[in-house]
This record gives sequence, structure tokens and C-alpha cells, in this order.
Amino acid sequence: MDAQQKISIEELRKLCRDVLAHYGFSQLHINALTETLVTGQINECASHGVYRLLGLIHTLNAGKVSPDAHPIVFDHAPAIVKVDAQKTFSPIAFQAGLPLLTEKAKINGLAAMAINHCVHFSALWFEIEQITQQGLVAIACNPSHAWVAPVGGSKSILGTNPFAFGWPRPDNDPFIFDFATSAIARGDIELHRRTNTPLKEGWAVDVKGNPTTDPNEALTGSMLPFGSHKGSALSIMIELIAASLIGDLNSAESLAWDEKAGGLPYHGEIIIAFNPQSFLGDQMSEYFNRAELMFGDIEASGARLPSQRRYAAKKKNLASGMVSIDQTLLKDIQNLLS
Amino acid sequence: MDAQQKISIEELRKLCRDVLAHYGFSQLHINALTETLVTGQINECASHGVYRLLGLIHTLNAGKVSPDAHPIVFDHAPAIVKVDAQKTFSPIAFQAGLPLLTEKAKINGLAAMAINHCVHFSALWFEIEQITQQGLVAIACNPSHAWVAPVGGSKSILGTNPFAFGWPRPDNDPFIFDFATSAIARGDIELHRRTNTPLKEGWAVDVKGNPTTDPNEALTGSMLPFGSHKGSALSIMIELIAASLIGDLNSAESLAWDEKAGGLPYHGEIIIAFNPQSFLGDQMSEYFNRAELMFGDIEASGARLPSQRRYAAKKKNLASGMVSIDQTLLKDIQNLLS
Repeated sequence: MDAQQKISIEELRKLCRDVLAHYGFSQLHINALTETLVTGQINECASHGVYRLLGLIHTLNAGKVSPDAHPIVFDHAPAIVKVDAQKTFSPIAFQAGLPLLTEKAKINGLAAMAINHCVHFSALWFEIEQITQQGLVAIACNPSHAWVAPVGGSKSILGTNPFAFGWPRPDNDPFIFDFATSAIARGDIELHRRTNTPLKEGWAVDVKGNPTTDPNEALTGSMLPFGSHKGSALSIMIELIAASLIGDLNSAESLAWDEKAGGLPYHGEIIIAFNPQSFLGDQMSEYFNRAELMFGDIEASGARLPSQRRYAAKKKNLASGMVSIDQTLLKDIQNLLS
Repeated sequence: MDAQQKISIEELRKLCRDVLAHYGFSQLHINALTETLVTGQINECASHGVYRLLGLIHTLNAGKVSPDAHPIVFDHAPAIVKVDAQKTFSPIAFQAGLPLLTEKAKINGLAAMAINHCVHFSALWFEIEQITQQGLVAIACNPSHAWVAPVGGSKSILGTNPFAFGWPRPDNDPFIFDFATSAIARGDIELHRRTNTPLKEGWAVDVKGNPTTDPNEALTGSMLPFGSHKGSALSIMIELIAASLIGDLNSAESLAWDEKAGGLPYHGEIIIAFNPQSFLGDQMSEYFNRAELMFGDIEASGARLPSQRRYAAKKKNLASGMVSIDQTLLKDIQNLLS
């Protein structure tokens, strides 16, 4: 990792806005994208922070995303919202559909939002967090580009397919997890290649489907799902419910669509929101308290709840109004303006 | 494994019915339980076949299940069915609620069924299969008894918490998986203890939370989730959506309720059904065909789809009208009648 420097959140936000405006993004896009990127940085999720600006502009320059289209929200069925993202980035489509998803979940007890035709770069936790803020429980997942082989196979058919979940906690940050169903992020394989470090067993196979710990063989071969056949099954489920069920590209189709442009994945996403008030009625506080007891037991036993590192970083950075950023990355972003 | 013998499916079905009648189960119960147990045997899922009769009768004798109550089905919200199982076994509650779940999923696009107060012993795949037969996509999960420690923890707080998914396939057996979120089944730990075989790394921790490969230490300590912190997170999600959200006991509470009687878990279950026709309309056949292409690619790459061993066994056994059964187990079941 290169040297880090501090920058004020306001200054970073302005830099993002300036870059996006420079490349012709509309106000709607500038607002949603800046919020997503800067939130990633505040939460110290470097891989989903302002670093992503580079990929966004690359994808725009490759002609693979719209900088100014308006997503269209459809009231598709009593419990289904559909959002046609119109080839915009996912956060713009998500924000367009969220109010109707929330309304439908509260009326029906649960509801699904299917986002179609979006270019994807954002972390699901940020979307989940916006749903738990409405008092709802949420599950979200999406395909990506096909870089992962199903367990036992020799071909990349599945994406790194993230799966995320959120549970609102009274008087506390929500319980949120968001993980790739691949054993490891693709960026980690790249990092091992650059530092010439062998991979761990179970992370990848070569082009013939044989286990490999060589990062070069992994990059020409396939990554593997986490958790062996169970993770593999979950990843296939994500292809089915977040591509086939919602009528959008799966990870193999997304990669084919990219035509080796090295752009971001283009596909859909499914989000399911549950209204605990509908399920529990006047028993809600009792059962939410019992969930709190479980969280307490988990922490008392020595385990950590997910997202705690992120919440600590957010708290610290919001208090100081400053975030850390890689110096080289900051220069690269500033250079986008020249 | 002891010696196996063949028995006709009809004879085995009659034996189940006789045993259940002998112990005072009502006709409704006898029908649903026999169907569940014999289907397990036909599918050669020995751990969810007629072997379970022993546990059912043990749980009845411990006063922990009702042999004759009628589950009550509630039209709880536009997209929520609630079933109060009235302390009956889960298959009786599931069958009572399935028609309304199906109807609600078809009207709204998706719907959830929350089963409460059921005694659980059945495999989720059997329930999922009944939903895919309606042309619906389904997810189901439930807590169990708390035998699993969250990753990093030293205390059993989570259950073996199965997670199952189903996708209907035109002209083919459905895509179904059903796995425990523990690294291994509790019965496997017991088997290693009996044969004095060390466990694999990552299966269990001792009472202090330290990794162990000693089956005895594992049985007094805790099992571990599959897939490290990702499996652990999924297991916590199951406690939340299949216990807290539906207003029922979580795995720790279920184990406490048992009062060391060694009975089956007592809790709830959540099932989410999606109607692909609502999502896809006249694009349904196109996207279902594209899912078939993915299944074909997966198999062509050398990987196996889940449930294939089970489907092959079912086909073979239904054709011959005979199933295999452990001789000692058959005697144990016959002895229940004396």
C-alpha cells in the first residue's frame, strides 16, 4: 500500500463532484455517485471508496454506461418493484426504486425490488443500510463477471456474486454483512501476483480445473467459491434469483457483453425487504430484544459481529471530518480533471 | 454401517403408518409424517428417512410434541401466511399452509410463510420440492438446537441451521440444494467419536473456543459453521429471519426448551416463495431457457448440480418399488410396535 494522506470529507466530496461533472454526468448521477463513493471512503472500505472513480470513468469512456439517463420505476406487481436502470450505475437505480420498495414492504409484509440493466460497482452494504434505516430487514445479491468456477468444474461460469443481509437494531448500528461468494476477492489474487506470493489452497483452479496456488495460473484459470460445494450452490442461487428470475444477464453473459473492454459488470440485482412490524405486530419489541440478547451472547463469547470495523471507522472519520486516502490514488483522481 | 436389506416401499409405508397409529398419532399426522419419512428413504437420504421414526417417538414420549393437534393457518398480511403448528411436527404445518402460500406468491409476486411452534425433523428439500412443483422458486431456512459457535467464539449459540433453495426446471428435476450451515452434521462428529477418528480442521472448537480435532472435545465444545466468517454470518441471518422475525425460539432458546430431554428442536421456519411468472411475464421461457444453458455449462465443465445423487436414487427405487434399509434400524422400528 502506498503512503496515505488525510483529506477533508468536504474536499473529497467536491473533488468527486468535479470529476463527475467534468465527464458529463447529470446532477442526479453526480449526487448519487458521490454519496456512494465518499461513504465507502468514510467507512474505510477502500475497495468501494473513491478508488472506484477510476473504473467509473473507464467504463464511461468505453461507452458502457450512461452518464445522464433517468431510471424508470415500475409498479410491477403488488409486491414487486422493477427499476429499469437505463444503463446507469446501480446507486441511481437503487435510489429511484427505494421509496416504492419501502411502501410495498410495509403494505404487504415483504416486497422485492428487481433492478435491471445497471452497471454495478457499489457495495451492497450501503444499499442494505438505507433499507434498515426504514426499519426493514433486507437481503440483496447480484451476479458480476464470470471469474469463478463452480466447485468440481474447470470453467468460469459464476461471478464473485455478493450476498448481503441487514437487520435494524434499536439504538445501535444495524447488523449487516456483505460478502463475496468467491473464496477471495479478485483484487487479492492480483495482489498476490504482484508480490509473487502463493495463494492459499482452495482459492483457485488452473485452466484445466486443477487446484493451484500460483496467482498467474489462477488469473488465466478460475477463482473458486468460498465454503466448497455450499458456497458454490449459493453462488448458483444468486445467478438464478438475481439474473434469470429478474430477466437480466447472468455473470457469463455480463462478461460476454463487456467484449473485453475491462468495464464494470452490467446486469441486475434483487433486493428483498421484510417489514418486521407486519410479521410481529405488538410482539416486535420482545423479539427484537431477544435478538439483542443473541448479539450480546455472540460478542461475549469472543466472536465479532460483522461490520464493526467499518462502523468504528465511520464514527472516527465523521467526528474528525477527515478521511485517509492513498496519495497515488488521489493524484490519479485529480489527473482525471486534466 | 450395518447390513442393508431390501423392503418394498408399500411395506415400509405400512410399517410407518402402523407405528404412528400405535402411538396415537391422528390420521392427518400419520399421512404427512409417513409421506415425509418414506420419501427420505426413497431418496436415499438415510438421515432424513425412516430412521427419524425413532426420534419422533422419543420426542412424543418426552411430552414435547402433539400427536393430534391441528395447525392453524392465518392470512396474516397480503404477502404473509402464518401457520401456528400447535406443537405438531413441521410437515403437518407445512402442508396446511402451502396452498395459501402458493396463492399469495402468485397474486403478489412473492410471499412468505412463517411456521411457528413446530417440532422439526424433516429435510427442507422435501418442502422446497413441493413448492417448485407449483412452478415457484423458493428459499427456506430454520434454526435448530444451539450446537454451533460463531466463528471466533467459544460458546454454542447457533444451530446447524439449514438453508435450502429450489428452482423449477421445465422437463427436468428441479435445481434444489439444502445444506446445514455447520461445517459438518452433528451425526458425523458422533461417528468420528465412535470410530476414534480425528476430525478435520475447522469442524469444531473445544469448550474454551480453541480449534480441536478430538471428537470428544468437539461434543463438549462446539461445532463450527462452514466457510468461516461467511458461513457464520449466514447462520446468524437464519437465527434472525427464521426465529426473531417470525416471533419464535432461536437455537439457544430451543435447546433450553428441550431441558436436556434429547428431543427434536422446537422452533419455527421461514419459507419465501417467488412466482417467476409475475417477475418475467412473457419473457419467462426465454430466461428459464438461459438458466438451462447455465446448468448445461456447469455440468459440461465437470461440476455436478446438487441433488443429482438423490434424484438417481429416487428414480431407481420408484422403478423397482423397493428401498434399502439398515437391518438393525428395521428391527428397531418393528420393536416400536411391541
